[in-house]
Amino acid sequence: MAALCSVRSCVSTVTRGLRRYGTPAVAKAVVKSDPLEPDGPFVNTEIPGPLSRELIQELDTIQNTKAVHFFVDYERCQGNYIADVDGNVLLDLYTQIASVPIGYNHPRLLDALMKDENRATFVNRPALGVYPPRDWNSRLKNALLSVSPSGLNQVQTMACGTCSVEHSQKAMFIAYQRRKRGGRPISSEEIQSCLDGRGPGCPNLSVLSFKNGLHGRTMGALGVTHAKWPLKLDFPVPDWPVASFPTLQYPLNQFARENRAEENRCLEEVRERIHAWDRKDCPVAGIIVEPIQSEGGDNHATPYFFQGLQDIAKEHEIPLMLDEVQTGCGSTGKFWAHEHWNLREAPDIVCFSKKMLTGGFYYKDHLRPQEGHRIFNTWLGDPSKLIFLEEVVNLIKEDDLLDRVEDTGSHLLSGLHDVQDRFPGLLSKARGVGTYCSIDVKDADTRDIILHRLRRKGINLGSCGSSSIRFRPTLLLCRSHVDIFMDIFDSVISELHL
Amino acid sequence: MAALCSVRSCVSTVTRGLRRYGTPAVAKAVVKSDPLEPDGPFVNTEIPGPLSRELIQELDTIQNTKAVHFFVDYERCQGNYIADVDGNVLLDLYTQIASVPIGYNHPRLLDALMKDENRATFVNRPALGVYPPRDWNSRLKNALLSVSPSGLNQVQTMACGTCSVEHSQKAMFIAYQRRKRGGRPISSEEIQSCLDGRGPGCPNLSVLSFKNGLHGRTMGALGVTHAKWPLKLDFPVPDWPVASFPTLQYPLNQFARENRAEENRCLEEVRERIHAWDRKDCPVAGIIVEPIQSEGGDNHATPYFFQGLQDIAKEHEIPLMLDEVQTGCGSTGKFWAHEHWNLREAPDIVCFSKKMLTGGFYYKDHLRPQEGHRIFNTWLGDPSKLIFLEEVVNLIKEDDLLDRVEDTGSHLLSGLHDVQDRFPGLLSKARGVGTYCSIDVKDADTRDIILHRLRRKGINLGSCGSSSIRFRPTLLLCRSHVDIFMDIFDSVISELHL
Repeated sequence: MAALCSVRSCVSTVTRGLRRYGTPAVAKAVVKSDPLEPDGPFVNTEIPGPLSRELIQELDTIQNTKAVHFFVDYERCQGNYIADVDGNVLLDLYTQIASVPIGYNHPRLLDALMKDENRATFVNRPALGVYPPRDWNSRLKNALLSVSPSGLNQVQTMACGTCSVEHSQKAMFIAYQRRKRGGRPISSEEIQSCLDGRGPGCPNLSVLSFKNGLHGRTMGALGVTHAKWPLKLDFPVPDWPVASFPTLQYPLNQFARENRAEENRCLEEVRERIHAWDRKDCPVAGIIVEPIQSEGGDNHATPYFFQGLQDIAKEHEIPLMLDEVQTGCGSTGKFWAHEHWNLREAPDIVCFSKKMLTGGFYYKDHLRPQEGHRIFNTWLGDPSKLIFLEEVVNLIKEDDLLDRVEDTGSHLLSGLHDVQDRFPGLLSKARGVGTYCSIDVKDADTRDIILHRLRRKGINLGSCGSSSIRFRPTLLLCRSHVDIFMDIFDSVISELHL
Repeated sequence: MAALCSVRSCVSTVTRGLRRYGTPAVAKAVVKSDPLEPDGPFVNTEIPGPLSRELIQELDTIQNTKAVHFFVDYERCQGNYIADVDGNVLLDLYTQIASVPIGYNHPRLLDALMKDENRATFVNRPALGVYPPRDWNSRLKNALLSVSPSGLNQVQTMACGTCSVEHSQKAMFIAYQRRKRGGRPISSEEIQSCLDGRGPGCPNLSVLSFKNGLHGRTMGALGVTHAKWPLKLDFPVPDWPVASFPTLQYPLNQFARENRAEENRCLEEVRERIHAWDRKDCPVAGIIVEPIQSEGGDNHATPYFFQGLQDIAKEHEIPLMLDEVQTGCGSTGKFWAHEHWNLREAPDIVCFSKKMLTGGFYYKDHLRPQEGHRIFNTWLGDPSKLIFLEEVVNLIKEDDLLDRVEDTGSHLLSGLHDVQDRFPGLLSKARGVGTYCSIDVKDADTRDIILHRLRRKGINLGSCGSSSIRFRPTLLLCRSHVDIFMDIFDSVISELHL
């Protein structure tokens, strides 16, 4: 382990150098976020290459493989670089659909894996709600409460993002009905009827969500998901209210008035939908929204919109629930994206997963279930993921990674603006906060050609919305990586424009 | 690691001895499933003890803790014994709600954790649907397909049991609608309407389930769950058809005629419900059932019932889906509980989790989605769990653990019958397959007193149904453990009866 430990200190030193002295030119020449990382991408075959194609064919005898891009040699991945099974190495700006916080094979995670005191946590998965491990409280504190959104003091772990959303919704439903009972005990009629799935035990309640949102793929999460048809087609889903999410015009400073009007229109729709579902006897028990709609197209709204949304939630005495599964854990330059909004008070629930390595949600006291076994399942998450998360959180703090994200992100965004200005018919709406950036291409086909050519030249990126490219790098991305990307992006776009 | 490896071979040798020569008397004197295991339970405090109570109080500032029994020192757990933080050691016959296959800190799992070639799998969690790891196909084959239920050649991993059920339901809905389309392509109206959660894209479809069943705690899984009110109260759930699950009378051989009539009644209800929901324009797209209703009270039915259920499913051309989350992975003495039934053909879907360490489901070809991203989420499970599962599966085969389960189970069941015969007013309906056993107590309060006193004397057990005790030991439980339990059980019951 000695060699790997020394890598870790290198990472810190180099990074600090970047923050203190870095300019784009210096960064390009000197900075590497990880001495073990390759100097740049290396691609020698089509992607997927012959071995990937063979493995895809084999896997296809076991399950549908149409979403598979290529097979990965995770042992050979390092830092911001992903290695495929055909010997190609790509700069990874998509990172397992935005779920790799500090790069591949980070020495701190490898260290944590090898520590004797962690072994029992890896091999004995507990039923956390009944038999929590000795160090569970301290793990919750060190890994989760140490970065909890201000004002939220309760936390529940879950195995994935979808379950976090489903159980958050349940917390809202429980709180709604408790308030409605006004202190009277649960009736035997409620208890009997709920077992049959009927009222009054199982009431008509809904959650308000937004067009183009994505919150997960189980039934309750699909009730608030509207991003793409393969997610929903053929599934019976609840008929819940859906409002428009703002469609901002860019550049923002030229369209301030129009965008304000658009956000007011969407807020008005929210009010209208809440009343409509009240009239349908299916009252809205809460509002769920992504700080930036991701799968739906990297759609941003201004703080004004979210402040307005919170006002509406408060007027109706219902919780505002933020799905920070993709935006959380630092990639916007703040630990939680909603910290950019200057809300009057904390949101009521914040869900997380992906880069947090464990699913779960923070919530306010008033959403805490009073009875046992209400928010419950066998595992309720996995403590071994909190071992890794604690390392991630500590690294973010020690190495001031949020500052790095902000610096790298501004470099990336200015690069994107630059290319967009040179190819206005092809690219538009370069946008982002931190490294959570994206850019629109004139149509879906062209976007897909660009992504394919980028991959062929060593850049792994993802799509979203109808014709957007989304950047979801690790928190360790530096200006030098951005420069590598921009060179290749420029060449791909230039070739396309010939 | 040398010492630990030698433990492993000891385990095998001793076990083989048991199977070949074991009699109850010999077993009691000689057999220990693991040389590192304590000789028996040791309890020195109330349970929860003072340190557990302190930790519960602390955890209660972060989340509701009403379901917590005690805090566990997982480093000190071994084999079939669970150690709490107060220095107590209990024989664990509940094993994290039936989710520990081969005991605590098993040397094979510890070995697998420490292997260099597994490190990348533990620290880099992939988005399996897009970037599967190099060894993914072989892991699926070695860990999952090597034990797939006969006739099911497709498998999909998931993070937990609930997600396995939800996505199985989706596979059924997709297949149902595809058949209804009769080969015509998906229409633009379907695509548009599904994004709004309306028909025809989101059709009215249902899943038929059984009273007292439990299949999970997200909305779609709650639609088929009817076990206990804390699971469902206050939640909007779909109005889907629910049929009675047989209530068998014991002893079975005395009530053969009555039980057959009861099963026919339940099958008739299934038919009736399918027709009723057809008339409601909410057709049944599939049937879900547990081989043994677990949380609902360890309710058994005979092979005749399940054969009849399969016949009904085939008549209506809908899939039969078995939730083997709790019954799977060997504890009934066969790898899958439905292997006891002699079905005419394989069930269409088999869901798993718990002892399988990963969630997921096996399914037949006709349920395979044709398009990409249909059964999908970010992680789709966790390959590191398959590393452990592969060890579990290999150990089951090498050490003939299914035979051991059968032998230990028959010893346990005969012991339960013996006590029940001596205390007929107190205990009834001793039942089980393999070590998947249970016994009823005259009422819930007495049952809870028994469980509390058992814990105080070193036996950890779980409840289910209204007044049942359920046994969910590891696959390594031996006759000698049963003898330890029976001695203590006998003393608790005798004291109670004084």
